[in-house]
Amino acid sequence: MTQPLRLGIAGLGTVGVGVVKIIRQQAALLTARTGREIVISAVSARSRGKDRGVALSGYDWEDDPVVLARRDDVDVFIELMGGSDGPAKAATEAALAAGKDVVTANKAMLAMHGQALAESAEAAGRVIRFEAAVAGGIPVIKALTEGLAGNQITRVMGVMNGSCNYILTRMESAGLSYEQVFDEANGLGYLEADPELDVGGIDAGHKLSLLSAIAFGTQVDFDGVELEGIGRIKIEDIRQAADMGYRIKLLGVAQMTGRGLEQRMSPCLVPADSPLGQLEGGTNMVVLEGDAVGQIVLRGAGAGEGPTASAVMGDVCDIARGFRLCMFGQPAATLKVAPSARSTLPAPYYLRMALQDKPGALAKIATVLGEAGVSIHRMRQYDHVNDSAPVLIVTHKTTRAELDVALAAMAKTDVMTEAPVALRIEMV
Amino acid sequence: MTQPLRLGIAGLGTVGVGVVKIIRQQAALLTARTGREIVISAVSARSRGKDRGVALSGYDWEDDPVVLARRDDVDVFIELMGGSDGPAKAATEAALAAGKDVVTANKAMLAMHGQALAESAEAAGRVIRFEAAVAGGIPVIKALTEGLAGNQITRVMGVMNGSCNYILTRMESAGLSYEQVFDEANGLGYLEADPELDVGGIDAGHKLSLLSAIAFGTQVDFDGVELEGIGRIKIEDIRQAADMGYRIKLLGVAQMTGRGLEQRMSPCLVPADSPLGQLEGGTNMVVLEGDAVGQIVLRGAGAGEGPTASAVMGDVCDIARGFRLCMFGQPAATLKVAPSARSTLPAPYYLRMALQDKPGALAKIATVLGEAGVSIHRMRQYDHVNDSAPVLIVTHKTTRAELDVALAAMAKTDVMTEAPVALRIEMV
Repeated sequence: MTQPLRLGIAGLGTVGVGVVKIIRQQAALLTARTGREIVISAVSARSRGKDRGVALSGYDWEDDPVVLARRDDVDVFIELMGGSDGPAKAATEAALAAGKDVVTANKAMLAMHGQALAESAEAAGRVIRFEAAVAGGIPVIKALTEGLAGNQITRVMGVMNGSCNYILTRMESAGLSYEQVFDEANGLGYLEADPELDVGGIDAGHKLSLLSAIAFGTQVDFDGVELEGIGRIKIEDIRQAADMGYRIKLLGVAQMTGRGLEQRMSPCLVPADSPLGQLEGGTNMVVLEGDAVGQIVLRGAGAGEGPTASAVMGDVCDIARGFRLCMFGQPAATLKVAPSARSTLPAPYYLRMALQDKPGALAKIATVLGEAGVSIHRMRQYDHVNDSAPVLIVTHKTTRAELDVALAAMAKTDVMTEAPVALRIEMV
Repeated sequence: MTQPLRLGIAGLGTVGVGVVKIIRQQAALLTARTGREIVISAVSARSRGKDRGVALSGYDWEDDPVVLARRDDVDVFIELMGGSDGPAKAATEAALAAGKDVVTANKAMLAMHGQALAESAEAAGRVIRFEAAVAGGIPVIKALTEGLAGNQITRVMGVMNGSCNYILTRMESAGLSYEQVFDEANGLGYLEADPELDVGGIDAGHKLSLLSAIAFGTQVDFDGVELEGIGRIKIEDIRQAADMGYRIKLLGVAQMTGRGLEQRMSPCLVPADSPLGQLEGGTNMVVLEGDAVGQIVLRGAGAGEGPTASAVMGDVCDIARGFRLCMFGQPAATLKVAPSARSTLPAPYYLRMALQDKPGALAKIATVLGEAGVSIHRMRQYDHVNDSAPVLIVTHKTTRAELDVALAAMAKTDVMTEAPVALRIEMV
């Protein structure tokens, strides 16, 4: 049998503990499948004394993850600390420089520094694997990079932030406001320390930017992701959407257009009976579309100890089996810089606005939309509440650019009582 | 750049032509992703003159696939002829003996000879890859063997025969009889030359036996698959199932039990609102359950030129990238022979029977069920038609063994006008 594969694990939160458990509990299985023993040489985390519910005394302890990453008895550095910069990035760079392979769950770091890290890894002849960074336990990086390698990928879509999906589905099922469910989710520990990473769509945007790079052979471009969070979604939007046969999802879409790469992460209306529309709670779903394969849909738990550790261990097993692959599926030097094509593909939009109780208010809005070239498919006005009347409009297909012109013009009228909410309707 | 990877393709039906098209149309993409040129040295098929809609004149032609498999200018033998024995097997063995890797879409061959072929491949230091043999374009072999390698797999389920699913969903949507839709599907070329391979569940059973081997580290055991086709499903069954909130699917389930490996491929009732229940037409779905990852659901086209060719090319790209993996994810010599545990896990069952129009008929049936230990959850009797009364029963959870005792005892009564239909209800 080949030499054991020796791991150094930095970060012993939920995922790190999950990885330790799998390695302890499934040793025989892992060896049968990879032909090697997989062992932990050393671990590192912020607080040494903390009881994590798993025995760690058999492993060396390093206070400094950079020191861990450089140890002679570490073949693979497992980065589970998180954070786009700081210790995670320093230790990852140290590991590559010291000739270690890296497995990481850190989407923020890869979204910000993926290109540079891919170049460093290739220069060092090492690999960086990151299945756990996107969609938890779903082997989507593997499906896209390897399984669909014979395809020109045409579109990637997904609901990739379980916390947002939990909030949206809980609002609907319990009839609660965004604020109520946000507080509830926060209390349950479902949200990141900085909740804006979740509800602002940033975390999901990081993930989308990584999938885009693989799908389209482009350099990771998180700044090119058009980001919109779920904070302005009201229970009324959810009810109105349901009434029209839609559900609201924080949906990521990446697509190569004639004008460049369009990447969007925003709340959208999707058909209630579509696979994405039916997604409940913390489950993630990724849709991959290729010219040969058509549409592949992958569904599973997007977070949590077991699912994320499963993804980390899939990468570890690949390395143990001797699979070597460029980070984004092709050499970093061949990844193109794609122009960012914001909002070029037209779609119908759902608009919710609140109009003042004065004659001609609705006519002004309709005029403004018409002048911007946005045509109205359906419109509903409701009774005035506190001198403000809710108006809902579903437009015909329009580009976001045209819509933005209309929204800007609306803001200049004197009939709106609050800024309108505009949600794309995505026929997935 | 590394040397080109040279293919020999045997079988130029739908899938073979699809593979040729991808290699011709995506040459640059494939080279970018694998670091090698992927070229076709020679092809083989039964009829040389046939117009296949793709230019083949640039490739050498071999009438004999065995000769093709042994050519010096072939690195990978692509077996797309089909058939469990005969030329496919002879050529695959010849390829391995001549030191070639093999990519095949041939589930029948692997279900019957998988263990022997895996041993031959390992002895020769070559790989056999077969993503295209299961669930068309869905990269399920890869997900199971690699992505979930850190998991103890607990259950594998799937709808893996698109033709059967087409027939069942078309019966429901058009209100047609099994016979009508069978003829329609056959006319459209949706069924195998021997349709019993499809509607008898054999093709899907082959696929299930391959997934089982990987999932549970066991030798492929197609004979251990409890097989039942869809030929006895009537439109009434579909309607009754729908009325109770279920849909009927040809469902495969493989699970390791305390008594051995249970593998079933049979028409089952599944909840209409479950992912499997919602599956329409020729689409396939595979559900993988692991101790760490929980449940992963994969959906996509189960057949057709593009999807199946995509799967073949995924395997080719893996080989081009230098991935080497044992056929069933671990060395053939370590695969265990699992006892076949037929029908040990209890479930509720749906029974449809036709009773003679005489007093006490229903009481006799109820008595027989009770004596076999099968308890009745719901029962409905309908009006007599031609002196025969349809009776529907949903049982409480029972084992198939107990149910079979009851069915045998029923057959001995003098009140049945035809053999009953018994369908398992699977809470997926």
